[in-house]
Amino acid sequence: MSSAQPLDTVRLSVDVMGGDHGPSVTLPACRSFLDRHPKAELILVGTESALASARAWPRTTCVVATEVVLMDDPVEVALRKKRDSSLRVAIAQVKSASAEDGSPQPAAAHACVSAGNTGALMAVARYVLKTLDGIDRPAIATVMPTQTDGFTTVLDLGANVDCSAEHLLQFALMGSALVTATQGKAQPTVGLLNIGEEAIKGSEVIKEAAERLRAAHAAGQLNFHGNVEGNDIYKGTTDVVVCDGFVGNVLLKTSEGLAAMLSQFIKQEFTRNLYSKLAALIALPVLQHFKRRVDHRRYNGAALLGLRGLVFKSHGSADAYAFEHALRRAHDAARNQLLQRLEAGIAVPSAG
Amino acid sequence: MSSAQPLDTVRLSVDVMGGDHGPSVTLPACRSFLDRHPKAELILVGTESALASARAWPRTTCVVATEVVLMDDPVEVALRKKRDSSLRVAIAQVKSASAEDGSPQPAAAHACVSAGNTGALMAVARYVLKTLDGIDRPAIATVMPTQTDGFTTVLDLGANVDCSAEHLLQFALMGSALVTATQGKAQPTVGLLNIGEEAIKGSEVIKEAAERLRAAHAAGQLNFHGNVEGNDIYKGTTDVVVCDGFVGNVLLKTSEGLAAMLSQFIKQEFTRNLYSKLAALIALPVLQHFKRRVDHRRYNGAALLGLRGLVFKSHGSADAYAFEHALRRAHDAARNQLLQRLEAGIAVPSAG
Repeated sequence: MSSAQPLDTVRLSVDVMGGDHGPSVTLPACRSFLDRHPKAELILVGTESALASARAWPRTTCVVATEVVLMDDPVEVALRKKRDSSLRVAIAQVKSASAEDGSPQPAAAHACVSAGNTGALMAVARYVLKTLDGIDRPAIATVMPTQTDGFTTVLDLGANVDCSAEHLLQFALMGSALVTATQGKAQPTVGLLNIGEEAIKGSEVIKEAAERLRAAHAAGQLNFHGNVEGNDIYKGTTDVVVCDGFVGNVLLKTSEGLAAMLSQFIKQEFTRNLYSKLAALIALPVLQHFKRRVDHRRYNGAALLGLRGLVFKSHGSADAYAFEHALRRAHDAARNQLLQRLEAGIAVPSAG
Repeated sequence: MSSAQPLDTVRLSVDVMGGDHGPSVTLPACRSFLDRHPKAELILVGTESALASARAWPRTTCVVATEVVLMDDPVEVALRKKRDSSLRVAIAQVKSASAEDGSPQPAAAHACVSAGNTGALMAVARYVLKTLDGIDRPAIATVMPTQTDGFTTVLDLGANVDCSAEHLLQFALMGSALVTATQGKAQPTVGLLNIGEEAIKGSEVIKEAAERLRAAHAAGQLNFHGNVEGNDIYKGTTDVVVCDGFVGNVLLKTSEGLAAMLSQFIKQEFTRNLYSKLAALIALPVLQHFKRRVDHRRYNGAALLGLRGLVFKSHGSADAYAFEHALRRAHDAARNQLLQRLEAGIAVPSAG
């Protein structure tokens, strides 16, 4: 693992137009982010009119893009038609160029944040930035809360449906680098998502992935804990949980669905009759504390890992509070040199 | 679909020794079940001493088995070594035999219930009962709660890791028969679990399964709704959700983990300080109502589908209340001729 010094000044590029709410959410979030991060700088990318109110902001550069990728635009439209979209121009800010003499030129920004649609964001990021050496497929990683008020980083969340053992190993290396950069853990533990003592213990791919992870552990490339099950994510058994994108997407959506149902049930119970409404009033501080604790907005900001540049994806429906959390996450990752860590982590020849 | 008349008398065989707590849980559950089901009959299978207290019960036959499959026994031990285990003898009660003249003899019991370990139960059930014609692999199905206080039946939950499109079609047919038998719905809707608008929409197997399900729908064999996502399970978008056993197991365990975490958080918040403890006292009736509503014990009793006999699996850690729910589920399924429905549903030549 790289032991790079934290950056003094982090510059983020922001797709101001992305998400269900566009500038009405992203701009207030950016403004609040600037206030809380006195050294950070922003490159705001959006239409002329959207950027008008931000022109006089401190530490802010405005870059005009003439097009907007809509949330329901097919990937092909984002990729081939809208070549001057805010999404694409924001991503281009993290692409490092070559000077005329061939020497590498630093990118304009250290990380990009967009709430645009995931398919378009991944496709354009992959096209504009390309993947890192040693990475076949980029992955999407997010954090999920744990019983001990910590985080479990889970990847992949839907970028890759059919994964090989080698891909799962790459995800493990990238997830470890992410946790080191964002949580400051030197040797994050990695779990391989599998099923338990039930009839058959995992597919051939999972068995082979476990072997590769054990070999990588023996070679000092990562800290492999072993197999974990679905409930271990919320127990916080390991810092990183690795799975293919189909499984990751299902577990994320299932969790969202269960949380929504339970929160609806709590609301219904506390408004059922006069007594329960009274109880709700009295229990309000307790319920609010509970709500803050499980507030999914605090986990907003998924990392697109494996590209030659840092890209973070905010939930499309994020409000300003949630979007600011995505900005923070991108900021912390860039500040702690996530890109260099990814390059270093993967440069180690892979075992198996 | 078969329109068989409900059975008048249902006889269940019960593995009294199974589960983490054995007879101390299963016997009280059986006793309470008998009281609530005045026409039902039980065949209790266990050791001589375990059955002593039940010998004088009404509508009850005691069958002695000399061995017990432990919760951590390997499948091989259950299958090859302990040939007189309560688990195996209980399963054998639902096996129909042939008389000397070759005519089929009805099985001793209509359905079997065990809280024994899943791997052993599935392996022994498969060995003793064999699979139905047209079924390659048995599946495990359970119900999960929905926002609208209904149920979604999900299968497979871990019996089959790598599934083909044909297997997923078979699961859909079996899940539909289960919902018809246990919930009385004539045309249960079926959803195919997939991932959403993210980068890539499902694997090749899922795409092919969707085609087969559409063809089966067109042929009137089932009621295919289309693709669903993880959150649709708790929304109750469809009556049945079909997925491979790896995905199903992960989503079940992840849900269990999230529910455990949230319930722990609620407890912690309501015991944080004097005020919150007071609030808890006042909110107690509301919290208890919420707790009852999400009580997972009410969903206990997974069906092993695709065998020549009905077998239901209780959670190993079930208490008497939960185990009785598994008995009820088995009772309702047997009463409404689930086995005949499965045979009829699958006898229809499969499309594709």
